[in-house]
Amino acid sequence: MAPVDADFMARALELAERGRGFVMPNPRVGAVLVRDGGIVAEGWHKVFGGPHAEVECLHDAERKGVSPAGGTMYVTLEPCNHFGKTPPCSRTLLDAGIARVVVGCLDPNPVAGGGAALLRQEGVEVTVGVLESQCREAVADFITWQTMGRPYVTVKLAMTLDGRIATRTGDAAWVSCEASRERVHAMRAASSAVLVGGGTLRADNPRLSHRLPENHPLAHNPQPLGVVVTRRLPDADAQLALLKDRPTRLVILTDAKAAASPVATQLEKAGVRVWGLPRAANGEGLDLAAGLARLRQEARVFALLCEGGGELAASLLGQGLADELVIFYAPKVLGDAAAVPGFSGLTVPRMADAAQLRFTSMESVGTDVMVRLRPAQRPE
Amino acid sequence: MAPVDADFMARALELAERGRGFVMPNPRVGAVLVRDGGIVAEGWHKVFGGPHAEVECLHDAERKGVSPAGGTMYVTLEPCNHFGKTPPCSRTLLDAGIARVVVGCLDPNPVAGGGAALLRQEGVEVTVGVLESQCREAVADFITWQTMGRPYVTVKLAMTLDGRIATRTGDAAWVSCEASRERVHAMRAASSAVLVGGGTLRADNPRLSHRLPENHPLAHNPQPLGVVVTRRLPDADAQLALLKDRPTRLVILTDAKAAASPVATQLEKAGVRVWGLPRAANGEGLDLAAGLARLRQEARVFALLCEGGGELAASLLGQGLADELVIFYAPKVLGDAAAVPGFSGLTVPRMADAAQLRFTSMESVGTDVMVRLRPAQRPE
Repeated sequence: MAPVDADFMARALELAERGRGFVMPNPRVGAVLVRDGGIVAEGWHKVFGGPHAEVECLHDAERKGVSPAGGTMYVTLEPCNHFGKTPPCSRTLLDAGIARVVVGCLDPNPVAGGGAALLRQEGVEVTVGVLESQCREAVADFITWQTMGRPYVTVKLAMTLDGRIATRTGDAAWVSCEASRERVHAMRAASSAVLVGGGTLRADNPRLSHRLPENHPLAHNPQPLGVVVTRRLPDADAQLALLKDRPTRLVILTDAKAAASPVATQLEKAGVRVWGLPRAANGEGLDLAAGLARLRQEARVFALLCEGGGELAASLLGQGLADELVIFYAPKVLGDAAAVPGFSGLTVPRMADAAQLRFTSMESVGTDVMVRLRPAQRPE
Repeated sequence: MAPVDADFMARALELAERGRGFVMPNPRVGAVLVRDGGIVAEGWHKVFGGPHAEVECLHDAERKGVSPAGGTMYVTLEPCNHFGKTPPCSRTLLDAGIARVVVGCLDPNPVAGGGAALLRQEGVEVTVGVLESQCREAVADFITWQTMGRPYVTVKLAMTLDGRIATRTGDAAWVSCEASRERVHAMRAASSAVLVGGGTLRADNPRLSHRLPENHPLAHNPQPLGVVVTRRLPDADAQLALLKDRPTRLVILTDAKAAASPVATQLEKAGVRVWGLPRAANGEGLDLAAGLARLRQEARVFALLCEGGGELAASLLGQGLADELVIFYAPKVLGDAAAVPGFSGLTVPRMADAAQLRFTSMESVGTDVMVRLRPAQRPE
C-alpha cells in the first residue's frame, strides 16, 4: 500500500522524539519532506535555541541536493509565525516553495501560532490534524510550561505485577530488569530534577544521578538537580550521598517551621537550598504545587521526575500534579500484603473515586513491560 | 517486501486461535497453503474430533479450485502421523502432492508425532521451527494435558495499576472497562470450569457463567462448571446463585473433615459435588494439585479459569499450578494500602524470592491494558 499522510506524520513523530532531553523548554518537533510519494529529507528540533524542525529538514534536503519546491512538508507542530531565536518558519517554508504543509497539531502558544493561517493565505495547501492526539501528546510538556507555570511532572515506578516496589523487609534489589534501569537513567538525564520523598532518602540513600553508557546520546547531559520532600530535615553531616557529593545541587522542600530551624541553617551553610512550603489546601501534607512553581522559577526546573516513594507518588496524583505516569512492570508477583506498595497514603472507599488516567503507550523493555499514562481529564 | 516464512506462519497462528473454546482437549492448530509467494487457502482445527487444520486447508483449496500440488503448507504444529479420529495428515499431504511443509513446532505427543520425519523420508522439503516459541505457546494447554494430568490453569485478575481488585470497603464495581469484562466472559465460555475461593463466593455471590452477545462465536458454548475452594462450606439453603441456579454444576473443594460433615451431606443431596482434599505438602492450605487432577479425571475439566480472590491466586502461583496469568490493568490508582490486593497470603522477605514469570503478550482492550504471562521456568 502507498504510504498515507499518517505514515509520514508517524515518521515525523519518531524524529521529534530524538530531541528529548536536549530542547526543553522548547517543544520536541519533527518534520519530513515528501516528493513523489516518498520521504526525501528529514529534520527535528535538535537543541534548545537551535533551528526548528522545518529548517533542519530543508537543510537536509539541501545537503542531499533535493529541491523542496513543490514538495509537501509534514510537521508535528504548527510552523511558528514569529521572530524568536530564529526567523518564522512559515516564511521560510513559503520562500522554499513548499506546495503543501501537513500539520500535526496547532501551536498552543498564541504568540508563536498563526503559521497555518498565514501559509493558507499565501496559497499553500494546509492540512491540520493528522495524528493530532499523538502530536499533542508529544508536546504535552511544552503545553504545561506554556500554561501551568510549573515543571512537567513524570512519576516513575518500577513495580511487581501486584504493585509492590519492595518486599516487607524493604528489599528492592531489583524489581525491574537491567534494560529498564538503563531507561530510568535516560529519563533522569532528560530531566531537570529528580524528586523523592524523605522515606526514600533515608531508606535508599539515592544519588538521583544518571549513569549511562558512554555511547548513549544523553550520556553527557548535565546531572539533574536533586529534590527531596520531607518534614524531617537530615543533619548537615548525615551520611547521605546527596549531601556529601553535591550539596549545592540539592533542594529540600519542607514545612515552614523546619525551614526556619537551626538544622536548616546548617544545611544552607553547606550549600543546600531549604525551602519552606505552605500546607496543602486540603490540610494534608505540603502544598507541592507551590514547591513546583518555585522550582520552575528559581531553579529553571522544566522536567521533573518523581521516583517515589508511594506516598509522594500518590500525593502528586491526588493533587492533580502528575502529568505523566511511567510504570515498569516486572514479571513477578510477591503476593505479600505486607510488601511496600507503589502508591499509598490515600483513603478511597469507592472504586469510582480512584484517580483516573489513560494509557498512552505500552512497550516491552527487556523482560519488563513499560506503560505510560496521562491523566484522564486534563485542561489543555 | 515479499512475505517470508514467518509472515505465513503468523497468519497460521491467527487461524489456530479461532479454535479456542471449541477444540479442547485437541490442540489449536492453523495452516495456510502458499503458491507463487501468496496464500491461496487457509484452514484451522475447528471442533474437537473434526478435521485437522491441514485437511481443512486442503478443503479450502478444493473449494477455491486451487491445486495444492507443488505448493507449500505452513502448519503451526507438526502434522500427525497416526490414525486417530482422522487419517494421518502426513499421508494426506503426501497424497496432495505438497512440495514443502513448514512446521512451527514438533508434536510433543510421541504417538501422534513423527509426521515431519515421514514427510522428509518421502522426499518432501520440511522446515521445522518457524516462530517456534509462539507456536509452542499456542499449544501450551495441549502440552499440559499431555504431560501433567490436570487442567490448564489460567489465573485472571482485573486490577488497578497499583494491584488492587477492590477498595477497602470491598467495592469492585467496576475495576475494568466493559470491553475487558466481555473478554472475561469469552474466557469463561472457552473454559471447562471457573474457580473462585470461599471469600469471593461469600463477598460477590458470583454466577461464574458467561453472558455474551448473541453474535459472539462463543455465545452458545456450554456454561463452565463452577468450582469453589473453601474450608467453610455454605449451607445447602444459602442464598447463593451457584447453589440456587445450578447446584449440579458446582464442585466444592474442601478439607477432609468438612467433606464428611452433615453440611456436606445436605449439599450433596442438592446435587453439589463436595470433595475433600488432603493438606498441601508444605502444610499451608489444601493440596490444590489433587483437586485439579480429580477435576480432570472425574469432570473432564481441561481448561480452568481462576477468578480470585487474592489468596487463591497466590496459592496457585506458589504451588506452581498457574500455567498462565492474564491481568487486565485498568488505568486507575487507588493509592490506599487498605484496599484489597490481587495477590495475598504469602510471606516473601526477599525480592529474589518473588514468583517469576515472563510476559507473552500485551494488548489494549477498551481503555485497559491486558497482559499475559507464563511461568518463567516451565518443564515442557
